Amino acid sequence: MKVVCLAGGVGGAKLAFGLMRVLPPEDLTVVVNTGDDFTHLGLRICPDLDTVTYTLAGLDNRDTGWGLTGDTFTVLDTVAKLEGPAWFRLGDRDIATHLTRTELLRQGKRVTEVTARLTRAMGVAATVLPMTDDPFATNVITDEGDLEFQDYFVRRRCEPRVERIVFAGAESARPSPEVIAALDAADAVIFAPSNPFVSIEPILTLPDVRERIMAKPALAVSPIVGGQAIKGPAAKMLYELGLDVSPAGVAARYRGLITGFVMDEVDRDLVPTVEALGLQVRTAQSIMRTDAARESLARACLDSVSTLSSMGT
Amino acid sequence: MKVVCLAGGVGGAKLAFGLMRVLPPEDLTVVVNTGDDFTHLGLRICPDLDTVTYTLAGLDNRDTGWGLTGDTFTVLDTVAKLEGPAWFRLGDRDIATHLTRTELLRQGKRVTEVTARLTRAMGVAATVLPMTDDPFATNVITDEGDLEFQDYFVRRRCEPRVERIVFAGAESARPSPEVIAALDAADAVIFAPSNPFVSIEPILTLPDVRERIMAKPALAVSPIVGGQAIKGPAAKMLYELGLDVSPAGVAARYRGLITGFVMDEVDRDLVPTVEALGLQVRTAQSIMRTDAARESLARACLDSVSTLSSMGT
Repeated sequence: MKVVCLAGGVGGAKLAFGLMRVLPPEDLTVVVNTGDDFTHLGLRICPDLDTVTYTLAGLDNRDTGWGLTGDTFTVLDTVAKLEGPAWFRLGDRDIATHLTRTELLRQGKRVTEVTARLTRAMGVAATVLPMTDDPFATNVITDEGDLEFQDYFVRRRCEPRVERIVFAGAESARPSPEVIAALDAADAVIFAPSNPFVSIEPILTLPDVRERIMAKPALAVSPIVGGQAIKGPAAKMLYELGLDVSPAGVAARYRGLITGFVMDEVDRDLVPTVEALGLQVRTAQSIMRTDAARESLARACLDSVSTLSSMGT
Repeated sequence: MKVVCLAGGVGGAKLAFGLMRVLPPEDLTVVVNTGDDFTHLGLRICPDLDTVTYTLAGLDNRDTGWGLTGDTFTVLDTVAKLEGPAWFRLGDRDIATHLTRTELLRQGKRVTEVTARLTRAMGVAATVLPMTDDPFATNVITDEGDLEFQDYFVRRRCEPRVERIVFAGAESARPSPEVIAALDAADAVIFAPSNPFVSIEPILTLPDVRERIMAKPALAVSPIVGGQAIKGPAAKMLYELGLDVSPAGVAARYRGLITGFVMDEVDRDLVPTVEALGLQVRTAQSIMRTDAARESLARACLDSVSTLSSMGT
């Protein structure tokens, strides 16, 4: 079964890791949000692509949830001494990724090609695709002003109240040919338990993506468990945007695109509510603290999606 | 005595260090070649400015002659693993300098301002000035094609035969206001024992510089000792350009600008030849292996230049 997994950062990376373990790696394509990408200290940084790549390569730092395990911070500590901007913590080996990417982009390579080279060099057997090669930037409109995503997420620690999310470049950005081909070839599409607003939504705004997903059996995994986000500001955003802070609130966002939904067992009382949205629901252990938990959730997703029909148009 | 020292990389940095030790630091301004500057891996790198700054800060690596003492290479070793361009060896702390510089330049700061900030952060009391804030690039025309300077110097190890040196941007580059002010305020100008063609000549090509030097007592220190360059391709360039590979060949390059010349004691037989160019000559121990040797050569230069009159116009 050829699977396309739509993913943001940590949650998406963990499920993708599980899928890679239970599928032949050549059958897995992870399409990754690039709305968080930014240029900092002259470096082109793609946080979600890197989290997915490091995780699939087994190099992710499981203590912090970002960066590379065992990385050192000589460069950033020295930047701090030079009174340079050191608020975005980059490890030395992580910086090597960004330097290499920045140089390849400068040579005219597409982000898709750069990502293929980096994943190959790190020994990742599955395919990792940026959602687009075009400029695309997620901006968060808050009660304290308009913030670029990393500014909101890292520097301001998601503290300002979100009023709206805006995707700069969304009018002209196109999905890459590789993304379109992967969706066309897919037997199923799985929305990882990533932030619906800033991880999955950017992918869905790209032209020709929604109708391709609707043509396939597709399910989403809830990033909200027991009324909270496992990681990141998804719950806070649902609340601030006036939506239901629950799997049902997430499922409602994806209505019309998916026919299946996977949510945590702790939320089993909400199954009828989600089913009332016309979705086939499965509950599972969705907190992925171990490799076994990643694989188990991946298996539940594959089992579930194999029983689905597509949304149709 | 307020002194302006014109400098390239290692030799210039060593003499500048000696001058900083024997002068009140506020009386020393080092005007540094920027023709070697280049962008690599997205980083703006200023090799001569960095060598001078690291040396004045006491952070220079005396074993290799480049980079910072005790630096680590985690980033570049990882770039190599990612099959990125790792031919230009950059240490981790050195990369921090370039990242900070690149970011400040991106924010619109001039190289002069960036250098002031970096030198202050590293505790350098003397003033270090890039020769210009404008684009300026030294290109080496060789029998194997036209090469950017670092390509010739580092990647090709100065092996191709030099036919000509070309300064891209020389028509429009201006010395910074700080350089002009330092020259106007100077009591003496000292040309460090740097490469005449690719370290000192770029500074001299800038408008308004030559006449300001001619208005001051000025001397040059020979980078050629016993028919060889202490470091770098100066001797090879003199030979390939059909010039005399000796202090006299160097002195002839500077004719009309300086009235004094300092050369090594091993070349004392050539004193009459250099005097015949109309220069007041002093011999000294010019190989600066120790701090004491740097200070001693600096004292010889100050003694000598204090007895000179200016070239006049």
